[in-house]
Amino acid sequence: MRAVDIIVKKRGNPLFPHGEELTRSEIEFLINGYVKGEIPDYQISPLLMAIYFNGMSFSETGVLTDVMLNSGSTIDLSGLYGPFVDKHSTGGVGDKISIPLAPIAAACGLKVPMMSGRALGHTGGTLDKLESITGYRTDLSVSDFRRIIEKTGFAMTGQTKEIVPADRLLYALRDVTGTVESIPLITASILSKKVAEGAEALVFDVKYGSGAFMKSQEDAERLAQSLAGTGHAMGKKIVALITDMNEPLGNTVGNFLEIEESMDVLAGKGPSDVTELTYTFAGWMAVLGGITETVDEGKILAEKAVASGRAMELFMENVQLQGGDTEKLLADKNTRRSSYHHVLTSSQDGFIAGIDAYKLGLAGVHLGVGRNRTDESVDPDAGIIIHFHKGDSIKKGDIIFDIFGKNEESLEPAAVLIEQALTCSDRQPEKTPLIIKEITAL
Amino acid sequence: MRAVDIIVKKRGNPLFPHGEELTRSEIEFLINGYVKGEIPDYQISPLLMAIYFNGMSFSETGVLTDVMLNSGSTIDLSGLYGPFVDKHSTGGVGDKISIPLAPIAAACGLKVPMMSGRALGHTGGTLDKLESITGYRTDLSVSDFRRIIEKTGFAMTGQTKEIVPADRLLYALRDVTGTVESIPLITASILSKKVAEGAEALVFDVKYGSGAFMKSQEDAERLAQSLAGTGHAMGKKIVALITDMNEPLGNTVGNFLEIEESMDVLAGKGPSDVTELTYTFAGWMAVLGGITETVDEGKILAEKAVASGRAMELFMENVQLQGGDTEKLLADKNTRRSSYHHVLTSSQDGFIAGIDAYKLGLAGVHLGVGRNRTDESVDPDAGIIIHFHKGDSIKKGDIIFDIFGKNEESLEPAAVLIEQALTCSDRQPEKTPLIIKEITAL
Repeated sequence: MRAVDIIVKKRGNPLFPHGEELTRSEIEFLINGYVKGEIPDYQISPLLMAIYFNGMSFSETGVLTDVMLNSGSTIDLSGLYGPFVDKHSTGGVGDKISIPLAPIAAACGLKVPMMSGRALGHTGGTLDKLESITGYRTDLSVSDFRRIIEKTGFAMTGQTKEIVPADRLLYALRDVTGTVESIPLITASILSKKVAEGAEALVFDVKYGSGAFMKSQEDAERLAQSLAGTGHAMGKKIVALITDMNEPLGNTVGNFLEIEESMDVLAGKGPSDVTELTYTFAGWMAVLGGITETVDEGKILAEKAVASGRAMELFMENVQLQGGDTEKLLADKNTRRSSYHHVLTSSQDGFIAGIDAYKLGLAGVHLGVGRNRTDESVDPDAGIIIHFHKGDSIKKGDIIFDIFGKNEESLEPAAVLIEQALTCSDRQPEKTPLIIKEITAL
Repeated sequence: MRAVDIIVKKRGNPLFPHGEELTRSEIEFLINGYVKGEIPDYQISPLLMAIYFNGMSFSETGVLTDVMLNSGSTIDLSGLYGPFVDKHSTGGVGDKISIPLAPIAAACGLKVPMMSGRALGHTGGTLDKLESITGYRTDLSVSDFRRIIEKTGFAMTGQTKEIVPADRLLYALRDVTGTVESIPLITASILSKKVAEGAEALVFDVKYGSGAFMKSQEDAERLAQSLAGTGHAMGKKIVALITDMNEPLGNTVGNFLEIEESMDVLAGKGPSDVTELTYTFAGWMAVLGGITETVDEGKILAEKAVASGRAMELFMENVQLQGGDTEKLLADKNTRRSSYHHVLTSSQDGFIAGIDAYKLGLAGVHLGVGRNRTDESVDPDAGIIIHFHKGDSIKKGDIIFDIFGKNEESLEPAAVLIEQALTCSDRQPEKTPLIIKEITAL
């Protein structure tokens, strides 16, 4: 077997202008060879480009995913009692859903082995948010991960080095070779990690809009179809919701600020959009895990888990088990703020026509919520409180945003971006639905 | 400027699904950076793959060609009197046209600065053929190249290391990354070398068929159009002939065997197909060089150059100037043969329906005419004499092929391939035309 022949097979020729499906042994030859350093990066990057142009079938993407996840170790959850259901979001601004969702799902009787990522560019990261809780550790060993799942039904940690090394190598290469925006490659990257962590069923939040990775609803749907089709080909149950990320989610963008809002959701006092999305995902997770027959029954179960206080209880237990200081957390809530503070008020009467999630996310990077490069640190107390949303009526002088920066200098450029993000109107705009579509492969 | 952004520009996005034309500064950034070792191969190979899929305009290909040729030194022919016109063939089996053509064109008053290549795969190489003349050197210094052109009107040498280093690097990379079969990349590779050697006008033999690089007439035409369009964009006069390479050219496939046949053409006794092609190219070269008004006038001039003996005289002078032993050459002609000899005879009465050029070329590799890897050596005396051609009537027992091998063991596998190459028929097949189309950019 020669790498060049496999590249040409995927690339195509006059007889097969769109290339041919690669076999498992061909994909193994290339991916395993690449991880071992036997196949050079200059042969992998044109293969990725050929995949960008010619795509991959769902079953072929499933094989790629499987080969990738077998490139490293997987989390062994044997001996624990499932059902193991996890959730993944393609990333957005103000998207803290995972944090209240995991304890709610656990309270409904599911096991959630959650491995999350960090903030990058305009999007936030679950790990950065969790680490804003004093003491909270996101570098759990596999045995701690298992132990905490056993105790509280969920654990939240970062991906270990041993998990899917092929994805780390491939992602770094895609990043510098113009091959990031490929649906099958994105699918294999996401799914390989989620399957490696032990999930049997998965719910996906595939976001589209200015603050999302996918700018158009069509692209988000293509990715959702690919995640569902590929996951199905791998024997997993998949639900993908297409959700709107033109506006930021909830009332906060930040690290500790979003922990606070997550706790509000767990207390039954969260913003309506975050609450709706959290319950809907919990409802689907209950269905996928076989706990309820319908999503509505699952949502009712989730509401009960909140109303009974059980979800909050599990969250606080998890904080403690992962090293967090629960007393300090409760004392910090709604009081711990950066001292670099700026307020943006409305200059007119009227309505909020929109708040651009992308620009708000970029403002967050300036403030210290996120980072441009993976080696930059974030500020736990930086962020933005959003007091009004699209469609809300405002009066001149109303405080629309509270802005908290990592330092004094960060406030000015962030404020400029936030002002650009805000558009007002004399007429009340129509509200847009948050959940656009549900794509299922059960 | 970042390499990844240029790759993405060529690759395209939802707004520009077929990518955008790259600017001169972008192409310079990548190609010059690659030659200097500043841009890694893993970023060049996906760019080449994006070019494979999205193509390049003629002017863009012209800029790539220009940047490539400026990556090294060019041959300075200043002080010599032109017109400098050269010929290039995309390669075939039995294709010795360049060898008689150069002295004929020189005898017509043209200057031919010819840099040729070596045999690879099933196709032969002009340099290997020339080196079968005892003593003949194809590693001329630039000053010898100039001096010999000045004396005999033409010189034939290999490409020096200083000429278009970008092409050597890019070709080696394309070879292992599935990006060889790209019309703009092939165009830039061919043209950069031909322009670097000092040619002002160029004739191309773009072959198609089993023994050619381009298997279909359509692909050959696309390449011819690209060579003409790109050459025109660079201010060169270009003529490309589409010619049939389903059958081998002439009566010989080999190194010294093809020198002999070239001398037959120069003596006015060559096979009709080789003679026709040589005169047609000479005719076009005369037109491009401004020596004659029409191709027919140019062909008459070429015929006169042969009839007068002037072309042969220039050939023998050139052999001497390039270190060849002319006395030995004349003594060797028609006598010097490998002692490993095998004869293939007809097993039936009938007609030759076809001789597959590709299989005959592969047989040549076994015999030692060509090579599979660039570091293999060739045998000057190996080869095949073809006594009958497509459409010829044969009788049982007729000798159809004389086969000469580098050793005894080489004969058997070659004979098997040659037998496979030959098809016979009860009915006389129609002759196919040799020159299918002329594509000009004057």
